[in-house]
Amino acid sequence: MKTQPSTPGRPLEHPSRGEIRLEEVLHALADPQRLRIVHTLAEPPAERSCSDFGLPVSKSTTTHHFRVLRESGVISQVYRGTAKMSSLRRDDLDALFPGLLDSVLSACDRHLLP
Amino acid sequence: MKTQPSTPGRPLEHPSRGEIRLEEVLHALADPQRLRIVHTLAEPPAERSCSDFGLPVSKSTTTHHFRVLRESGVISQVYRGTAKMSSLRRDDLDALFPGLLDSVLSACDRHLLP
Repeated sequence: MKTQPSTPGRPLEHPSRGEIRLEEVLHALADPQRLRIVHTLAEPPAERSCSDFGLPVSKSTTTHHFRVLRESGVISQVYRGTAKMSSLRRDDLDALFPGLLDSVLSACDRHLLP
Repeated sequence: MKTQPSTPGRPLEHPSRGEIRLEEVLHALADPQRLRIVHTLAEPPAERSCSDFGLPVSKSTTTHHFRVLRESGVISQVYRGTAKMSSLRRDDLDALFPGLLDSVLSACDRHLLP
C-alpha cells in the first residue's frame, strides 16, 4: 500500500476489504483520539469533514490519525471539492470481524467518552 | 504502574480491573504474536508457561510480548517455582468490554491462525 501526499481531486489510497488486517485495525483503534473519531463516525451523518471533529491536537496530528484509520481500513475518505470527507467502513469491518466494532463502540460509551 | 525486572518469588505488577484501559488492551492485541498468545490462553489449560508457546521470535521479544499483555491487563502472570505462568484475564475483560475478547478470538480463528 503506497502512501502519497493527498491533494484534492486525487483518489486516496484504501486497502480493499481483502487487504484489511485484524492487527492493523486493532492498532488503528488503540488510541483515544482515533476512538473518538470512530465513535463520532458511527453516528449520523455517515460522512463528516475532518474539521468537524475539533480534536484537542494539532492539525497535522489530526491528519495523521485519519490517515492511520484510512490505511488500516477502518474509515474511507473522499474529496468533495476541497473538503476531505470521512466515513466508517462498517460493512467491511462487520463482514470481516463480526462484533468487533460494536464491542469497541460500546466500550467507548462506557469507558472513554465523553 | 511501575515496571521492574521480574525475579522468581517477587509478585509481578498488574493493573487492577479499574485500571485497565480500552486503548491499552487494543494496543496489546494489535500484534500477531500477542494475538497468538491470547488465542492459545483462551483454550485449556487455563495457565501456561511462556516456554509453551514456541513463538518464532527471540526469548527477549517473547518476554516483551508477555509483559505488554500483562501490563495492559490482558493476562495475569505468577511464578510457580521458577516458571512464570500466564493466564487470560477473561473475567475482567468480559466485565469491562463485553464481547470484545470473543470477537477478537473469533477474528483470529478466521483470519490469523494457524
